[in-house]
Amino acid sequence: MDFKINSKVLEKLLSKVIPAVPSRTPMSILENFLFEIKDGLLTVSATDMEIALRSSINITAEKNVKMIISARLLYDIIRNLDDALISFTIDTKGKVKINTDKGVYNLSYSPSEDYPEIPSVSKEKEVLINGADLKKALDQTAFAMSKEDMRPPMTGTLLEFSPEGLKFVTTDGHRLVKFINQLIVTEILEQYIIPERAISVLLKSLGDQDVKIYLSKTYASFHINELEFITRLIGEKYPAYNSVIPLENENILTVNRSELLSTIRRMILFSSSNPKQVKFNIKSNSLDVSAEDVDHGSDAIETIVCDYKGDSMEIGFNTNYVNDILSHLEGEQVTFKLHSPTKAGIIEPVQKLENEDVMMLLMPVRINN
Amino acid sequence: MDFKINSKVLEKLLSKVIPAVPSRTPMSILENFLFEIKDGLLTVSATDMEIALRSSINITAEKNVKMIISARLLYDIIRNLDDALISFTIDTKGKVKINTDKGVYNLSYSPSEDYPEIPSVSKEKEVLINGADLKKALDQTAFAMSKEDMRPPMTGTLLEFSPEGLKFVTTDGHRLVKFINQLIVTEILEQYIIPERAISVLLKSLGDQDVKIYLSKTYASFHINELEFITRLIGEKYPAYNSVIPLENENILTVNRSELLSTIRRMILFSSSNPKQVKFNIKSNSLDVSAEDVDHGSDAIETIVCDYKGDSMEIGFNTNYVNDILSHLEGEQVTFKLHSPTKAGIIEPVQKLENEDVMMLLMPVRINN
Repeated sequence: MDFKINSKVLEKLLSKVIPAVPSRTPMSILENFLFEIKDGLLTVSATDMEIALRSSINITAEKNVKMIISARLLYDIIRNLDDALISFTIDTKGKVKINTDKGVYNLSYSPSEDYPEIPSVSKEKEVLINGADLKKALDQTAFAMSKEDMRPPMTGTLLEFSPEGLKFVTTDGHRLVKFINQLIVTEILEQYIIPERAISVLLKSLGDQDVKIYLSKTYASFHINELEFITRLIGEKYPAYNSVIPLENENILTVNRSELLSTIRRMILFSSSNPKQVKFNIKSNSLDVSAEDVDHGSDAIETIVCDYKGDSMEIGFNTNYVNDILSHLEGEQVTFKLHSPTKAGIIEPVQKLENEDVMMLLMPVRINN
Repeated sequence: MDFKINSKVLEKLLSKVIPAVPSRTPMSILENFLFEIKDGLLTVSATDMEIALRSSINITAEKNVKMIISARLLYDIIRNLDDALISFTIDTKGKVKINTDKGVYNLSYSPSEDYPEIPSVSKEKEVLINGADLKKALDQTAFAMSKEDMRPPMTGTLLEFSPEGLKFVTTDGHRLVKFINQLIVTEILEQYIIPERAISVLLKSLGDQDVKIYLSKTYASFHINELEFITRLIGEKYPAYNSVIPLENENILTVNRSELLSTIRRMILFSSSNPKQVKFNIKSNSLDVSAEDVDHGSDAIETIVCDYKGDSMEIGFNTNYVNDILSHLEGEQVTFKLHSPTKAGIIEPVQKLENEDVMMLLMPVRINN
């Protein structure tokens, strides 16, 4: 059977699907694209058994075909072709012939029977969200997902549909981020946990387009124009995170975010390894930030102008965690709401944007003296 | 003792010297800068025992000092400071205090006695060369240095001063590149072999400025403004490369360089691994380029318009080597001068630039059939 397609159109389609192809896998069949033509619709899919990507395009073809073909090889060939109409001829003996005005390329294909089925998600529960809004929520929360497998729910990002909006929550036990998109209020009042790898691939696929999300108990599906992204969900219950968020932290430190961030980046150089720690010595109008690297016999102290309402306090934090938080918050000024050197602090932007709310919680560390 | 310096000026100086600091070394002392102040001149040096970099700047300081200090830490601190005047205070107890308007940073230093001496090269033999010209010659030849230690001279780049100019030669036994800068004609008629690591660091240090080269039997020194780059030379004799260059290759193929290069990049995808090979089937007006990947059951053929004077010929090459050569040559058209499918071919640009000459030699491979 034959069909024709522009090389750059096909390249774009393949480039959207290839992120789901695992780079190392004991199941070599997953290194292929599932390549299907049905009634004039070409659909290319890939999966690593946790996530899947699928995209389609209309072509003119008289017959149907379903096969698997080396994903990396096909993608590399197509993206190295000039912008031109290319023709595919698929025989019944396992050969695909690609003809261009430059030459002829023959590839092998295999039957698709053994390729795992890509789940389809029922369209019962649908949520519409702007792609840029979704990207922002995932961007600001992803860094705090746990890297440890001990408690599987914490290795993912919680999407919690609530009367206040769609909440995105991540935590690794030392810090917690809660981002609320207040525009998304639906009848669904449930929790879904998306695995880390799905978040990172999704972040690359999202643009400004609207995204339709379909949800089932075990899978979520994101439709971004012609691209469909499917991910397995983490089935266990997310920890009851609200109980750890302090309600009354009465000591309020307000400070310029980028100024403190540049100080913290210097303090990282002076923080002893494992865990790196930084000390905040807070007085009414000034914040002393200091660190000491015992191994290398070096130390540093900087003083930053701040506004502080509360009792003088010395409190220690993991330097990398403070860096993460200040890097992912927006706005010129941030507040640290503190209670005591042993209780969780809350960090928020002073100016919150309309229709969204973000707060980051950070546990202090005991200061080495 | 005290001195003051602008943070960005010091950052620039350190950034030029740090490439000589080895990233992994069993001699941890080499992870330091040698930091010396003598009669108002601050000199920072680094070495990995094969190459060394040294740069100086005038400062106002009343005393002299010579010490070693962690290169990575000092460089990271300085480049993370804002653009401002910073002051150094060096005590006699192993501490350096850096004061800025933001804060205070304390580092440890050590005495310099155990730091290896950086060789100085006699200024007897001096050669002046434009930095951009030197960079071009090294850029076009470096790729063909041998990666195998069996014959040490071939792991470096030969600089041969001759009556025809300064020749740059590299070879790994499968290919050979000879680049001649015809402007450099000196009384020196000698050969010097520069090691691979020196070439790669030198390429990063070179700009448009003139470069003074000083040569001794065992070391070469390159002066690029305030920066001095010193390298050990490879002491053995370079192979007599002229005897392998064929003088009469009577079959002349002329082809568009970028067109053939883009074909070769596609052929790499179809070349069986180890060694990848590509077949040229040359007729009077057309060149068929083909490759076959037996492991993956794929193959490709492209036809390129060419000009060919000679007998029809089938000849095979290592695909990666053809890619290297076409990537490093300049000009729109290239000629392949061939004799037979088993003898070395010569590849040259059709249009040569004034005052330079370049030729690349490539051994064919036996075609698998």
